[in-house]
Amino acid sequence: MTVGELLQHGDYGIGTVQDLDGEMVVIAGKAYQVTGSGKINQLKPEQAAPFATVHFNAPHAQTTLKDIDKSALEQHLLEKYPYRNVFFAVKIEGEFAVMHTRAVEAQKKPYPSLTTATKTQPTFDAKNVQGTLIGYYAPALFQGVAVAGYHVHFLSADHQTIGGHVLDYHLKQGQVAIQPFATLQQHFPLDDQAFLKEDFDYGDMDRSINQAEK
Amino acid sequence: MTVGELLQHGDYGIGTVQDLDGEMVVIAGKAYQVTGSGKINQLKPEQAAPFATVHFNAPHAQTTLKDIDKSALEQHLLEKYPYRNVFFAVKIEGEFAVMHTRAVEAQKKPYPSLTTATKTQPTFDAKNVQGTLIGYYAPALFQGVAVAGYHVHFLSADHQTIGGHVLDYHLKQGQVAIQPFATLQQHFPLDDQAFLKEDFDYGDMDRSINQAEK
Repeated sequence: MTVGELLQHGDYGIGTVQDLDGEMVVIAGKAYQVTGSGKINQLKPEQAAPFATVHFNAPHAQTTLKDIDKSALEQHLLEKYPYRNVFFAVKIEGEFAVMHTRAVEAQKKPYPSLTTATKTQPTFDAKNVQGTLIGYYAPALFQGVAVAGYHVHFLSADHQTIGGHVLDYHLKQGQVAIQPFATLQQHFPLDDQAFLKEDFDYGDMDRSINQAEK
Repeated sequence: MTVGELLQHGDYGIGTVQDLDGEMVVIAGKAYQVTGSGKINQLKPEQAAPFATVHFNAPHAQTTLKDIDKSALEQHLLEKYPYRNVFFAVKIEGEFAVMHTRAVEAQKKPYPSLTTATKTQPTFDAKNVQGTLIGYYAPALFQGVAVAGYHVHFLSADHQTIGGHVLDYHLKQGQVAIQPFATLQQHFPLDDQAFLKEDFDYGDMDRSINQAEK
C-alpha cells in the first residue's frame, strides 16, 4: 500500500517501509521514516509500506504521568483502564529523560526471513528529548495479525535527534492518551502475486515475530 | 451483537447463537439457527450472537463440481485459485449425496470452557439432500481471530431436514463459488463488561479452538 493511501485510513500510527527500510512513525497526518542509520525522512505519498497500522486520533482518556519508565507505564495503563482484552492505541507527548530505540535496516531481494533480517539492528539513545511516542496494545489473541502486547515507536519533536522502534524510555513528564477500538480493519494485498504465491512458514511465525519485535 | 445488526454487515455467513445455542447459518439475508436437537429456526433480529462472520455475497469465481467429497473439494479450490494466503468465502448450492453435520448445545451460566462445552455434540446425517453450504477459509495466520483452514455450515433447502456445522459430505453436483476478501473488519464488544473483565487463557486458546472446531 502506498503511504498516500495509508494516510487516508488514519493520522497516527506505526509501520515499516518498502524493503523493511526502517521504522515508520505517523504523526499528525505525516509519515516519517527512521532508517537503520538513524536518519529521519518524511515519506512521500508514492512510497510503499509492506506493513503498517494507523488510526484517526480521538483519545478516550488522557492523563499526565511523571517520572516513570516504559514497563511501569504500560502496566499502569492496563490496571487503570479496562482494556486488556481489546486493541488500543497509546500516545505520549512529553519530555523523555532517556529514550532508547532501534531501527531495522533495508533488505535486498531475495529477501531473508524476518528473523534473519532483524537479527542485528542498530540502536540509538538520547537524553532529555521532547517528542511523541505512538503505538498499540494488542491482546495475545492478535499475535500474528499484530504483535501481542505493546508495540510503540517514537519521533523527537525536532524530527532530527532520534526516532524508531522503542526499546525503553524514562518519561520525565508527558500527556498519556489511550484510545480503544471497537473495530479493526485489516487490508490484504489481493493483487500482489508474490504475496499470494509465498509459502509462508506459519508454524514458525509466532517465534519469528517474538524474536524480531522484542 | 444482535442478529439485526449483524445482517447489516452481510447476507451470507456463519456463527453461533447466544449461550452457544446451536449453529448459525446466514443465507440470502436471513439467519437460521440449528439447535443441538437438530431443530431449525429462523432467528429474530433482537436475538444475539456471541460470534459470527458474514459478508455480502459477490462471488469472484464459480464452477460446477460433481461427485466429490469435502476434503478433495477443499484441496481442489486451494490448487485452482491463488488464495491460500488470504481469507475467502466458499459457497456451494447443490445436491449432496451425503451430508454429515453437528450442532453445539446451549450452555448455562457459569459458562464452561469452549473445550468442555463442545466435548459432546449431537451429530446429524442426511442423504440426497438439496441445500446451501456456506463458510470460510482462513490462512493459519488467522487462528484465534478465526478458525484456521476451512470452516463451513450447511442448511437444507427445505429449512427442515438438516443443518449445522459440516463434518463431511459427498457432493453429487453443485455450483461452487469462492470470494476472496481484501478487507477483514472485526468488531469487538467494547461495552460488554464481562468480556472486558474476563481473564482469558490465551495460552490454551489455540488448542481449545482446534479441539472444539474439528
